[in-house]
Amino acid sequence: MQQDGSRLDPWISRYAARASSMTASEIRSLFAVASRPEVVSLAGGMPYVQALDLDMLADGFAKMIRERGATALQYGSGQGDPFLREQILEVMAEVGISANADDVVVTTGSQMALDLVVRVFCDPGDVVLVESPSYVGALGVFRAYECEVVHVPMEEQGLNPIALEETVNRLVKEGKKIKLLYTIPSYHNPAGITQPPERRQQVLDVARRHQLAVLEDDPYGLLGFDGKVPRAMRADEPNQVLYLGSFSKTIASGLRVGWVLAPHGVREKLVLAAESAVLCPSNFSQLAVSDYLQNQPWREQIAVFRDTYKLRRDALLDTMKLLMPAGTTWTVPTGGFYSWVTLPEGIDSRAMLPRAVNSLVAYVPGTGFYVDGQGKGELRLSYCYPTPDRIVEGVRRLAGVVEQELDLLATFGPDALPHTEMPNFANTPAPNVR
Amino acid sequence: MQQDGSRLDPWISRYAARASSMTASEIRSLFAVASRPEVVSLAGGMPYVQALDLDMLADGFAKMIRERGATALQYGSGQGDPFLREQILEVMAEVGISANADDVVVTTGSQMALDLVVRVFCDPGDVVLVESPSYVGALGVFRAYECEVVHVPMEEQGLNPIALEETVNRLVKEGKKIKLLYTIPSYHNPAGITQPPERRQQVLDVARRHQLAVLEDDPYGLLGFDGKVPRAMRADEPNQVLYLGSFSKTIASGLRVGWVLAPHGVREKLVLAAESAVLCPSNFSQLAVSDYLQNQPWREQIAVFRDTYKLRRDALLDTMKLLMPAGTTWTVPTGGFYSWVTLPEGIDSRAMLPRAVNSLVAYVPGTGFYVDGQGKGELRLSYCYPTPDRIVEGVRRLAGVVEQELDLLATFGPDALPHTEMPNFANTPAPNVR
Repeated sequence: MQQDGSRLDPWISRYAARASSMTASEIRSLFAVASRPEVVSLAGGMPYVQALDLDMLADGFAKMIRERGATALQYGSGQGDPFLREQILEVMAEVGISANADDVVVTTGSQMALDLVVRVFCDPGDVVLVESPSYVGALGVFRAYECEVVHVPMEEQGLNPIALEETVNRLVKEGKKIKLLYTIPSYHNPAGITQPPERRQQVLDVARRHQLAVLEDDPYGLLGFDGKVPRAMRADEPNQVLYLGSFSKTIASGLRVGWVLAPHGVREKLVLAAESAVLCPSNFSQLAVSDYLQNQPWREQIAVFRDTYKLRRDALLDTMKLLMPAGTTWTVPTGGFYSWVTLPEGIDSRAMLPRAVNSLVAYVPGTGFYVDGQGKGELRLSYCYPTPDRIVEGVRRLAGVVEQELDLLATFGPDALPHTEMPNFANTPAPNVR
Repeated sequence: MQQDGSRLDPWISRYAARASSMTASEIRSLFAVASRPEVVSLAGGMPYVQALDLDMLADGFAKMIRERGATALQYGSGQGDPFLREQILEVMAEVGISANADDVVVTTGSQMALDLVVRVFCDPGDVVLVESPSYVGALGVFRAYECEVVHVPMEEQGLNPIALEETVNRLVKEGKKIKLLYTIPSYHNPAGITQPPERRQQVLDVARRHQLAVLEDDPYGLLGFDGKVPRAMRADEPNQVLYLGSFSKTIASGLRVGWVLAPHGVREKLVLAAESAVLCPSNFSQLAVSDYLQNQPWREQIAVFRDTYKLRRDALLDTMKLLMPAGTTWTVPTGGFYSWVTLPEGIDSRAMLPRAVNSLVAYVPGTGFYVDGQGKGELRLSYCYPTPDRIVEGVRRLAGVVEQELDLLATFGPDALPHTEMPNFANTPAPNVR
């Protein structure tokens, strides 16, 4: 084994072409530093699982093992536990979806569902349309399958349907094969935006006209702060939409239970792809989720999460309003985990990151959420994990860092800012970036 | 959604090229029938998890959640829990491996490790060498990545190193790119064969001469009936061998915790691929395994499994000896889950399967373990799951079915056997076939 500092890899010439996109970013080492307790991390998208009642869960899991251990500890169906798939229908009913349990495939988190969909649909060079910005973990999957990712503008109302249609027309004219439109209409990661119903219909109209498969990612749909639940696009269009769901934010991310709901023919392919990838999802995790949904007050727990995140969002937004230098703008999320910040003209969020971490605050630079170099002046702040007082302190530190950048800029011009050369953000996300 | 009988798939023209290999075999419906309680299934490779102490596990898991719930329920490292990776070193020490925890990647079962290795190494058309026969679930992965699979002869001593070298030379001459040699040296699935140490060295010599990456799959290594543990190939060759391990047969398959140990550069790629595939493995499952290894008598439990499987193997072999018609031969496994049966000349195991299921016994036809149509006269019998008396009854039924085939053959010749036309065995395994 190479144990020397250079870590020369003798296998380098033997890898698949797709492996060339598998490179770690130097930004990772910064995140390693950012995980130290003295740093306020506004970077990670970790749910606040501390809000769960551990005693209640422990008792429930123990009972489940005693009563159903022979099933929980055994291989199961590649498509997922049949009873859990029925329960997932009940969860999806909350966002307006009616479906058949036979069209649900349970996966190791919805990230795996995303991987399977791309595996089934995309050859190298096929186009996937995404919002600007889009979820870094999805971009990683599209890149891993050597897709061409094309951004479509989004604004306060979410993905712009006119821009979408123009982009489709242009790409079709260029002879490109567009395979998927990947979209997060509710409480967008990273943009913190929710698309209103009429806009969703307009996007669906474009999708229908061009027979575009829409991949709707909806991990945050039940986490709206006003108690309202946005109606999923899949609720109005069962044939054109593949819907990704997850228990990571509504129960617990450590269980790794997500799912995809797909039209029947696609579902068949997805099951075969899933069996090739992992044989079957964990019965242990699935039965834990199933038992939780049946015996614990899951709607009430989601309400607890919602209230927790609402307080934290308020702490973030209120403190930004007080302290962030003029010229900084941000989105006002009505649910979910994130606000998207645009810095004053001239500041590069990626170049600023080492100085922010040095000042004991972390965020994710905007460029990670684009494939084309956009996002230099933007960044993502998460308010899901730190407590409100930590968020206040984190924003205070961040505001100080931005002030300093502005001072340098005003005094000496753009060349004064030390632009540390850094490669693109990791093609695949560090898990704490979800 | 298509709900009609024809299940026409409107997306059929939109899939990736690799999806064409994702087709379900009609044999699946037979296995659905075979899962009925009146059928003795000698088909599935399900471990006998009933041998576990459920009360002890329930108490252990509950304690783990109470004490470490905030970690168990949270996202974790994409590479896997650091402490579990240390414990995995201890497990691998049993097969003679010494390694660094930094080179271990924890996966959702070792099937996912297999998927990731192929993802990192293989472009479409690249060659993977496998034994004849080989594990059906691995063949499914190689096909999913559009590899060319080439069988290398194996015999009582396992993979033949001379045939291996000849095959490599021939393929290199043909300009083929050989990426991996996939091998199961201990208690082979499906062949039930264990390769002796000197043969392993000869195979490693060939691998070194041709800079061939060896993918050693070792889920059964600790399940030897004589209490001896075969030394892993990886123990003698850390640079050339990627080692796949699993807790599915030593603890419980429903946890879906496996791993890959790889040379450092490869490991880096594997972690990035894993993060793209599932973000991170389940902390819930990982901490359950970790807690089990730390607080439960895992070596004693493996001894219980070994004794259980030994009794069942004896029931299988003894009854075959008594009842199987002359001309039938089989391998004598010294560990693991399987015996490989060769039927009397002229009998087709796949064509016979519907009649066997009709007689309430199931097995896996041999053709599933080859990519090239070999295996018609062979089949795999598993003795891991049914109790000894059920195994005796299953073999009695199977012997009766073979007798009937022989009678028809003797009286009317080969055309008398109803050769139901069936497509190739599923490209991906039904989970109960592992």
